Amino acid sequence: MESEAVQKARLAQRAARVLAQIDTPQKNKALAAIADALEQQVDYLLTANRKDMEAAKIRGISEAMLDRLTLTPARIRAMAEGVRQVVQLQDPVGKIVSSWETDGHLKITKVTVPLGVIAIIFESRPNVTVDAAVLCLKSGNACVLRGGSEAIHSNTALVRVIRQGLRAAALPEDGVALLENTDRALVKELLTLRKYVDLAIPRGGAGLIQMVVQTATVPCIETGSGICHVYVDKAADLDMAVRIAENAKVSRPSTCNAMETLLVHKDILQPFLKKLLPVLQKDRVTIRGDREVQACGVMEAATEQDWRTEYNALILSVKTVPSLEAALAHIQQYGTHHSEAIVTTDKKTADLFLQRVDAAAVYVNASTRFTDGFEFGFGAEIGISTQKLHVRGPMGLEALVSYKYRIQGQGQIRL
Amino acid sequence: MESEAVQKARLAQRAARVLAQIDTPQKNKALAAIADALEQQVDYLLTANRKDMEAAKIRGISEAMLDRLTLTPARIRAMAEGVRQVVQLQDPVGKIVSSWETDGHLKITKVTVPLGVIAIIFESRPNVTVDAAVLCLKSGNACVLRGGSEAIHSNTALVRVIRQGLRAAALPEDGVALLENTDRALVKELLTLRKYVDLAIPRGGAGLIQMVVQTATVPCIETGSGICHVYVDKAADLDMAVRIAENAKVSRPSTCNAMETLLVHKDILQPFLKKLLPVLQKDRVTIRGDREVQACGVMEAATEQDWRTEYNALILSVKTVPSLEAALAHIQQYGTHHSEAIVTTDKKTADLFLQRVDAAAVYVNASTRFTDGFEFGFGAEIGISTQKLHVRGPMGLEALVSYKYRIQGQGQIRL
Repeated sequence: MESEAVQKARLAQRAARVLAQIDTPQKNKALAAIADALEQQVDYLLTANRKDMEAAKIRGISEAMLDRLTLTPARIRAMAEGVRQVVQLQDPVGKIVSSWETDGHLKITKVTVPLGVIAIIFESRPNVTVDAAVLCLKSGNACVLRGGSEAIHSNTALVRVIRQGLRAAALPEDGVALLENTDRALVKELLTLRKYVDLAIPRGGAGLIQMVVQTATVPCIETGSGICHVYVDKAADLDMAVRIAENAKVSRPSTCNAMETLLVHKDILQPFLKKLLPVLQKDRVTIRGDREVQACGVMEAATEQDWRTEYNALILSVKTVPSLEAALAHIQQYGTHHSEAIVTTDKKTADLFLQRVDAAAVYVNASTRFTDGFEFGFGAEIGISTQKLHVRGPMGLEALVSYKYRIQGQGQIRL
Repeated sequence: MESEAVQKARLAQRAARVLAQIDTPQKNKALAAIADALEQQVDYLLTANRKDMEAAKIRGISEAMLDRLTLTPARIRAMAEGVRQVVQLQDPVGKIVSSWETDGHLKITKVTVPLGVIAIIFESRPNVTVDAAVLCLKSGNACVLRGGSEAIHSNTALVRVIRQGLRAAALPEDGVALLENTDRALVKELLTLRKYVDLAIPRGGAGLIQMVVQTATVPCIETGSGICHVYVDKAADLDMAVRIAENAKVSRPSTCNAMETLLVHKDILQPFLKKLLPVLQKDRVTIRGDREVQACGVMEAATEQDWRTEYNALILSVKTVPSLEAALAHIQQYGTHHSEAIVTTDKKTADLFLQRVDAAAVYVNASTRFTDGFEFGFGAEIGISTQKLHVRGPMGLEALVSYKYRIQGQGQIRL
């Protein structure tokens, strides 16, 4: 007998072939039906969520985790609103990327097509379930979702409601599936089903991402791990640097685009820290610094381990660097190719930084926090890619399509 | 002590950082120096090749394999000529893909960048060594090559000559490396060096490709496996269909874009085979057919195994189908998403075929043999991708770059 992973991936592939052929109004009709279904089923969703919450409290998970897990009527309305926003986004399928005629008079048209079946492995936030499903649908793909076991009742209920929306729009409900058995062996199976699965996307912490990348034999996209730096150059506007550093660290420390390490040119270290430290103290940020930074009044010492750590919390490591070259070398060694920023008024230094840093997003005089699908103007995103293949940076709908070449001839053969 | 794989990949990454920053004239100067070095070192290369040839003869490899392994002065000149052609191709790095200003007045520029270090695992043809190295160089990437053990002396000599060209152009010779130890364990190590290797590309038979895809934890691109079909519709111009079928099967049967299975609509089976069979007999093609095809004078029976087989030889399986739908279903089940063709004069049928077939290249009234970088106008190619991620179909220089976002602000923070 086939496992749940094989069965759902196989049925998803069948559904994907239907979803690949439908037009934009049909997709949008399904999305509208899903939004409506979410709003109509608030009580059902809250009841399911309560089971997860009770189990979580018994297991004693953290307040932060509990908050991420919680559904409320307002959060469900926000989910439905998010789905309606995806209706407004342009359909990424069927776009002509380019077209030309060869010397031999073949007419070649490169046109975007869906990927097929996308496996999404994620952690406890139930809103990911809805986001992922509707982005896949809008791009003509089917998806097989595998959420964290702590959200299993919420996710099961959400996927049932989404499938109800698909049925209401006369589309195959197998286009959105959830692994209800949270046995880890099933995830591994899903990640090696090359026959059915076209892409795997992990969304979550470093452990989850590494598991997916190491296990998958289907193509996968590494997402989200972010050790981001802000480098304050000797030619920086120090007040601007304080605002950017504060924003990059404090505005939402749990995100992957938050700053983890601040690099400061030695020539401006003292005046800059004099401005910065009181601000970060007020924000309750714990600071760990090298010797020079400690000499400016920081109590905790940073070790090599700090340069390698994505805190995802109100902790900041600060390092003094003697030059732009030293800042670039540090970023090269410890960065995760996510988002890196320089604060400087020197155009030549800024251009060198833009040219030399190998990251998805390289900023001059702006906060790293802008690396995000909405901020870039892409609309909803399915993650932020930190690899170079296929897609880099915020992954909007265009990251979920491939293309094919359509070639029209008049009997041409190759000589 | 680090293994040869780790050492060469690590040094390649260091070289890649230099190669990523050099301009087009510098790259082209290096390519010209490589072409010159190849021509100057013909004797050295032939001597090395002779060692491989002698070992091969002792082991008794096939005539076809022996031919692929052989270097001659003319073949070396052709290699040098191929390198000079790459000089003429546009540099794919540093192109502005798009640029826009956000509502918050951030100026975002999406610009192409090299991938970094590319591992290329290939079989016995030594010309792949040169092709792969120069395409990687032109796209600003370093490469670590691993060829078949039967060509080890030829490949070692070729890479030495290429590195001599790099030195002559004052570029880091570690940008092109070859694993000289052909132990399989080193390949596996190379394919899991996520710290150093950005992409793996296998070039060769199905066994090699599957090994790479199953082993790699670095991103990889599946290439080349091609079970290509030609479907002759009931509304086909039968003479055109004969020409296309012959060309697709016979012009170069060992390539991945050659036809393996011919699908024929039942309504025109008899008149079509009457025209086709004498042609293929003259071409010495072995034909295996289903019952209806056998009734038209074909002696050998096709089994289900035939539909799954990439012969890469002068063998053709022929199947009768009752409809376009049946042809599409067969291609869906047995195709490898490479190249598929229909011969028809019915525009509606042609459009359905173009729309419904899920393959890199879908043809109307032309031979599948055109799926090739040169034929598409891309110039030299590094392989043909049969996966949907990153690149699909012929992989020219543009398949070897990624991009980054450069963002210019005036102190913006995220609210």
